[in-house]
Amino acid sequence: MIDFPLGKAFTLMEPGPVILVTTRDGGKNNVMTISWTMVLDFTARFALTTGRWNHSYAALTRTGECVLAIPTLDLLDTVVGVGTCSGREVDKFARFGLTALPARQVGAPLIAECLANIECRVVEIIAPHDIVVLQGVAAHIDENRRERRLLHAVGDGGFVADGRRFDRRGAMRDKLPDGV
Amino acid sequence: MIDFPLGKAFTLMEPGPVILVTTRDGGKNNVMTISWTMVLDFTARFALTTGRWNHSYAALTRTGECVLAIPTLDLLDTVVGVGTCSGREVDKFARFGLTALPARQVGAPLIAECLANIECRVVEIIAPHDIVVLQGVAAHIDENRRERRLLHAVGDGGFVADGRRFDRRGAMRDKLPDGV
Repeated sequence: MIDFPLGKAFTLMEPGPVILVTTRDGGKNNVMTISWTMVLDFTARFALTTGRWNHSYAALTRTGECVLAIPTLDLLDTVVGVGTCSGREVDKFARFGLTALPARQVGAPLIAECLANIECRVVEIIAPHDIVVLQGVAAHIDENRRERRLLHAVGDGGFVADGRRFDRRGAMRDKLPDGV
Repeated sequence: MIDFPLGKAFTLMEPGPVILVTTRDGGKNNVMTISWTMVLDFTARFALTTGRWNHSYAALTRTGECVLAIPTLDLLDTVVGVGTCSGREVDKFARFGLTALPARQVGAPLIAECLANIECRVVEIIAPHDIVVLQGVAAHIDENRRERRLLHAVGDGGFVADGRRFDRRGAMRDKLPDGV
């Protein structure tokens, strides 16, 4: 994992991939699968929605920290497995063979098997909607990874992998933030 | 366009596609391109983030209504075009050859060329983050459409079309809401 510019971290989330969110609470790592996320601004500010009933919700609230880890197509069954059991009963890092790496600015771990990781602090939890507002504080990418296709959850048990890429940079130049 | 069950409308948004958002204000239709969206719950509640400087923001605020229209790969250059000009200066429906169809419950139009349309009412605007909370009230799909690959914006001028689909319905059964 090498440093990834924080000012470009939104480009990891804007495509709308299903992600893994790690937390560390009471000396224990946990991870959940989340597909309800959104970019809030180019400073690497994000929102995600999760329920109070999730084990990770308590850790997010207590520690105010997490890592958004971006998996790729080869991790599809890990993503599904992580999303269908609870950290209350299972050590998910052990069960799914995930490698926790130390983050730089937060206690929650990076996931070595993922394409990228964004370290985040909780800015605010907007209670009536369970929207968690996050500020990215560091980002990392595995530059040597071959499989880079992201996964998109449909919500009905189906998933879609990235297909063809199209460049419209020229037409969009005026809309892109500096340095992106 | 035929009716699409509102209880499944979240499956149109959960994959994280770039969408078109229509509004109608003062007798004029407008449309913007948005990729910062998120599902909030299975009742067809959504969030999107947009800036106060956008022409559509005023219409959203004043009318409290919009339509989330889901374009597909064949509409890539329409999506880019709509996203790089303003309704202040341009009639975007005319310029991009989009056909406005009457919605059932809101004043904002459906877009005939899109795969699906979700009629929405504004529930709340969470001011400090410019998060617009929307409640879907009706949904429509073009069942005869051949091109159904969604588009995902990367944020750097690149776009990615849907690729291969994978079914993990069996593994996820306990996590799916009834009827989905």
